[in-house]
Amino acid sequence: MKTNRSPHSSIKIGILGLGTVGSAVAKVITKRPELGIKVKMGCDLRRVNVPCPLTHDPWRLINDPEIQIIVETMGGVNPAKQYVLAALKAGKHVVTSNKELIARHMAELMAAAKRHGVFVLFEGAVGGGIPILNTLRDNLFVNRIDEVYGIVNGTTNYILSKMTAEGKEFDAVLKEAQKLGYAEANPKADIEGYDASYKAAILASVAFGANVKWADVYREGIEKIVAEDIAYASEIGYVIKLLAIVKRGNGKIDVRVHPALVSKSHPLANVTANFNAIYVKGSPVGELMFYGQGAGGGPTSSAVVSDVASIAGLISCCEETCQCSGNVRSLPSVKVSPITEIENRYYIRMEAADRHGVLAGIAKAFADKKVSNAAVNQKETRGSTATIVILVHKVAEKNLVAALRAVKRLSVVRKISNVLRIL
Amino acid sequence: MKTNRSPHSSIKIGILGLGTVGSAVAKVITKRPELGIKVKMGCDLRRVNVPCPLTHDPWRLINDPEIQIIVETMGGVNPAKQYVLAALKAGKHVVTSNKELIARHMAELMAAAKRHGVFVLFEGAVGGGIPILNTLRDNLFVNRIDEVYGIVNGTTNYILSKMTAEGKEFDAVLKEAQKLGYAEANPKADIEGYDASYKAAILASVAFGANVKWADVYREGIEKIVAEDIAYASEIGYVIKLLAIVKRGNGKIDVRVHPALVSKSHPLANVTANFNAIYVKGSPVGELMFYGQGAGGGPTSSAVVSDVASIAGLISCCEETCQCSGNVRSLPSVKVSPITEIENRYYIRMEAADRHGVLAGIAKAFADKKVSNAAVNQKETRGSTATIVILVHKVAEKNLVAALRAVKRLSVVRKISNVLRIL
Repeated sequence: MKTNRSPHSSIKIGILGLGTVGSAVAKVITKRPELGIKVKMGCDLRRVNVPCPLTHDPWRLINDPEIQIIVETMGGVNPAKQYVLAALKAGKHVVTSNKELIARHMAELMAAAKRHGVFVLFEGAVGGGIPILNTLRDNLFVNRIDEVYGIVNGTTNYILSKMTAEGKEFDAVLKEAQKLGYAEANPKADIEGYDASYKAAILASVAFGANVKWADVYREGIEKIVAEDIAYASEIGYVIKLLAIVKRGNGKIDVRVHPALVSKSHPLANVTANFNAIYVKGSPVGELMFYGQGAGGGPTSSAVVSDVASIAGLISCCEETCQCSGNVRSLPSVKVSPITEIENRYYIRMEAADRHGVLAGIAKAFADKKVSNAAVNQKETRGSTATIVILVHKVAEKNLVAALRAVKRLSVVRKISNVLRIL
Repeated sequence: MKTNRSPHSSIKIGILGLGTVGSAVAKVITKRPELGIKVKMGCDLRRVNVPCPLTHDPWRLINDPEIQIIVETMGGVNPAKQYVLAALKAGKHVVTSNKELIARHMAELMAAAKRHGVFVLFEGAVGGGIPILNTLRDNLFVNRIDEVYGIVNGTTNYILSKMTAEGKEFDAVLKEAQKLGYAEANPKADIEGYDASYKAAILASVAFGANVKWADVYREGIEKIVAEDIAYASEIGYVIKLLAIVKRGNGKIDVRVHPALVSKSHPLANVTANFNAIYVKGSPVGELMFYGQGAGGGPTSSAVVSDVASIAGLISCCEETCQCSGNVRSLPSVKVSPITEIENRYYIRMEAADRHGVLAGIAKAFADKKVSNAAVNQKETRGSTATIVILVHKVAEKNLVAALRAVKRLSVVRKISNVLRIL
């Protein structure tokens, strides 16, 4: 809820890190004087073109008594963390889009903010321009949130969308994406699901009001997805997407990032290129979806500036007179289910001898471990080797793993090529 | 941004109108004591089953000095308006889901709230559980909003989705919808687009921070859509949806509700049944979409209780010490473009003699008025009458109307059966 504020006061801020997001923030604020916010100084080691005074020394911002809000858009944990902690200690509010910092150290930063009576806001850390965190916290907090899941990494979604549309292999598409600037020279953080896992930890913490440790997030990337899987999935009505999934379970929660088969009729299936989309299921609100551009200076600056302006609004209206500041509850710990306990439907692709009775043997090995097949399909045969695609009904992952171990021991089975969960 | 508040204080509220939404609100609040809100009394003329004391007399709530927030979930303008104004005058905050009241009298209610230093919040009036208004106001206000459009009426979306899926005619589907409780016995408010037009006026006012008069909203309903139009639209890759459209134009804005052809590849095309979805285009945020259940006690109560809890939070933290209360800016007036000035692409279905040269004659009549055809298609012929479907390129509506007048004068043209805009 926006509060009344005097348009005459001007709240001074400093920006640490003037890359794509930081400089977009400086530009948006400068273009909108009616927000009553002034970028007193920006800090970057590079020479950058921004409409504010510049320094190389972060401490000039942190130690400036006029600056009330520090925007941290440097990224990474070090040295961002020490600057943010110092700013909080100096009684400054902090707005950051740094998902790694928040995912790894949310509890510590929150505790510091609480101690010093200030806010730490981080809408820009998840979903770019989609106001998902503030919506969960401000507009959906009267609900019991049961599930939050979606596409939260644009780079992998671009790659998977392109592989799907053009039937190309992962390596070729990754190289194209790097050329076009959609993937980093070192693409590990995106491809291997680290970026999405940071966002999953943050989404879980905000959705459940709990301290979900990033180290507890189960993570798989998209590097093992091949064109063959995408083609087989498509035949049976699915696309493959990298999902972040957060669910309320039995006294525990379930937080994970992995590629999954998504039915073509599900709205997430049509989220392509660099778009993000996040589903929320709660009670009494039912089902919601939020869709938008998940990265980039424009969208992310909308989120960062909105956080800055919200704090500026509260400062202007409450200045010294009340205790509105400090959004920070102590977050209770929560148990995260190990991936082995989680139930899923699965897609399994394997290579086996093209011989009479092979399918029967595999089916029996599954049945012995109480894994029941939804569909078994012998695909193409190359020489004496047949590709077999199996879909199995919902089963705990540990049972599936046991069944796959038994299947692997069958002399006719040459290789289990891929195993993917189905949403 | 949620503010810190003492969990011990209990804010007392009263609920006027305990229908589907009002009683869901009472139940959600009673189930969530940690919100620190208490329903002191509800008012309804009927006997209803709610977990709070009941009265038939609204003035008992309005005159109760302990009650700080009035929830108005009666619907309709009279007598809701006099109760809301009296509550504001008595210094009570008001939360309402009454779209007709807000659409018709927003400026007057806002002025009264400003005068008495209180809030009027109405998230529940648009999009049910989708927090679209608070998101526009709290999280996207740093953007220049250029466009807001979407599906905001569940009844008409149910009917159109059903006509599309089953090829049935409007009357048959309406009767089914009435039997199932998806349409009212008197369906006029939904079918003729009144409900959507209230929401369009509210969306425009909030998106543009302006006083958009409901009377200026252009409105067409879905009663003229026949199965034939849906089938022809489908052939060329479109579905028909009732849309609310709000756009920033040249010093004016464009606010309208009408059925429109939507490309099957547009995410709105897959929004079916009673779901709502609202697109927002702004700068720097880019494109966003918000999707969810647009009506019903559960979703709408999420919105209403969230508004109540936001106000309760501010009361608890600021009580008498600051001027946070009163969200109310004076809304500047804004000019609304007449529909005749607005440019669209169009779908036109007509009946003409099945005779040589007919298409050429029609094409010439269009060209004379500078309306250019994107596609002309002679569909089936019944006896001597042919059905012709024409798509025209973007053109101002007044030019199209002039062209259609000329076409109508052609002796070979028997009837212009339908004209629909294309999104």
